[in-house]
Amino acid sequence: MPGFRVAVVGAGAVGDEMVKVLRDRDFPMSQLTVLARSSRKQEIDGIEVDVKETTVEAFGGVDIAFFAGTEGAKGASQVYGWEAVERGVFVVDNGNDFRMDERVPLVVPEVNPDAVESGHRFVSNPNCSTIQMVHALAPLHKVAGLKRIVVSTYQSVSGTGSAAIKELQQQVEDYVAGSKLTNEQYPYQIFANLIPQIMGLKDEFEGYYGEEIKMIKETRKIFGLADLAVSATCVRVPVFRAHSEAVNVEFQKPITVDEARKALAAWPGIEVIDDPSASKYPMPFFAAYNDPTYVGRIRRDSCNPNTLDMWIVADNIRKGAALNAVQIAELAIERGFVKPK
Amino acid sequence: MPGFRVAVVGAGAVGDEMVKVLRDRDFPMSQLTVLARSSRKQEIDGIEVDVKETTVEAFGGVDIAFFAGTEGAKGASQVYGWEAVERGVFVVDNGNDFRMDERVPLVVPEVNPDAVESGHRFVSNPNCSTIQMVHALAPLHKVAGLKRIVVSTYQSVSGTGSAAIKELQQQVEDYVAGSKLTNEQYPYQIFANLIPQIMGLKDEFEGYYGEEIKMIKETRKIFGLADLAVSATCVRVPVFRAHSEAVNVEFQKPITVDEARKALAAWPGIEVIDDPSASKYPMPFFAAYNDPTYVGRIRRDSCNPNTLDMWIVADNIRKGAALNAVQIAELAIERGFVKPK
Repeated sequence: MPGFRVAVVGAGAVGDEMVKVLRDRDFPMSQLTVLARSSRKQEIDGIEVDVKETTVEAFGGVDIAFFAGTEGAKGASQVYGWEAVERGVFVVDNGNDFRMDERVPLVVPEVNPDAVESGHRFVSNPNCSTIQMVHALAPLHKVAGLKRIVVSTYQSVSGTGSAAIKELQQQVEDYVAGSKLTNEQYPYQIFANLIPQIMGLKDEFEGYYGEEIKMIKETRKIFGLADLAVSATCVRVPVFRAHSEAVNVEFQKPITVDEARKALAAWPGIEVIDDPSASKYPMPFFAAYNDPTYVGRIRRDSCNPNTLDMWIVADNIRKGAALNAVQIAELAIERGFVKPK
Repeated sequence: MPGFRVAVVGAGAVGDEMVKVLRDRDFPMSQLTVLARSSRKQEIDGIEVDVKETTVEAFGGVDIAFFAGTEGAKGASQVYGWEAVERGVFVVDNGNDFRMDERVPLVVPEVNPDAVESGHRFVSNPNCSTIQMVHALAPLHKVAGLKRIVVSTYQSVSGTGSAAIKELQQQVEDYVAGSKLTNEQYPYQIFANLIPQIMGLKDEFEGYYGEEIKMIKETRKIFGLADLAVSATCVRVPVFRAHSEAVNVEFQKPITVDEARKALAAWPGIEVIDDPSASKYPMPFFAAYNDPTYVGRIRRDSCNPNTLDMWIVADNIRKGAALNAVQIAELAIERGFVKPK
């Protein structure tokens, strides 16, 4: 296959991981450019990279651009995304800015690959906590039909970005040194604490923070179920990498634990770790830096019909961001929607 | 009021806190004996205490005994609890051994005080994660009637005991020193990780671990609702002290967020911290060592009728164990069920 000229926009936690994933998967590239706010030399995945300043012109010689939007901040895709599309670039945006835009498919390749159609030049990557949940629910939805989801998340600091990883690291060191702990990335210390807030309030769902609303709206869009009942509580936990989720999910039809395990085990990208008698279940420390979405603790909610409880863990930077974005581009290439110029 | 001769059985995290709570609350004591597996000198709450060996005879001169049973292990109350009752002692047991026993009331004084009757000489303290949940749900149950509870917990290592607190502390130090992390109290490292297992499997609810089953069965017993729908996922988190819970609760009747806040704020022992626009909500780091059960993030689940989401945090050693046990004794004294000999 001929190579694509690829740009990664952003050189933080997600941008760096995109570069790594592109290399790891032997993505068909003839050129890889890393763009950021300012030009500099930066080591990415063990190799020194010439990071260039993001400009409209920089997209001139590019076939595929991955935008590594960061949580909370205005993503580069808002400024450059559609300008890049006008220059013939196929854009995959990890940011939040266009996920609910009607022009833009919101895609997890193992869940709704057909949402990407021939004419699409701009595809959004869902939010990290949404990706792993819909990934694990897709095979069960196919068997029994989703009815209602109640999810509580346990989200690592890497979801906030590199500065938050450093902040937790510094707090751990300061704690051991007996120094005063300081915080900038979060409103409170995260070491030995939990913060039940991810993003800010929005008008549309009273009392819900942004991350919780994303999980509700993105899940509906991805499954094409506009009225799907979803409630989410999103909590930041003192874990460096990988998000975990406790999910109680009610289906339209009966589904047994065995049927659920089988459907999950057969699904692309899912790994079932579920032997509770041997204390085998997914955990963030062991899921970090791996590709699969891990599912375990699958059990019947004996108090509600057609309902299962489960525990879902995935690397939020990999499947939750960089890997899923690269998979979207691979999907578009495979279907012939993107060709090298 | 004349003083009671009090014994605390157990000198671990909970036993020590019982001594502290008895002193802090000026419990009417003429004598305080600490009993443990072996006699020794031990500093408790800043004072050196002569810990005595637990024997049947040691209960001879005792009016009230608090048993600080530890999670998982066979509690001292199994060996000495009913022997003490036969010797005229009023027993409050923090352990798990007799909570579901029909002879034994299971009591949170702010929730079901009337469960303690004149003839009772043995009262059980519920499990820590149950106490704070039923405490926060009691005022709402009174207004709207509980129908179904889905809870995910975020439980601190102090729930396992002093050795687990030390283990997390050691793992934090080893991590900063660049040493290999070791674990004994938990099957995996807990620092920078989450373990979705608390206690072992039981036959009665397939796939549920012991802590989850406790939350289901104890909640039903405390509210006197034998068929109440409860599902729980219990997770150990790298937090030293205080448990947190994300609770989605469906009621029989409509209840607004304002009604819920008002009912909670007026309830004994509850403190509402709920100003999401100012990032005010309960957190374990700030709840630790305090008495109240804190409630925040109260919001309407817009996808399910008569349903609220909320976030409940309490010190698992204090309200979740020692404080609640002492409150049970205070209740029995106040009602005239226990008198000094």
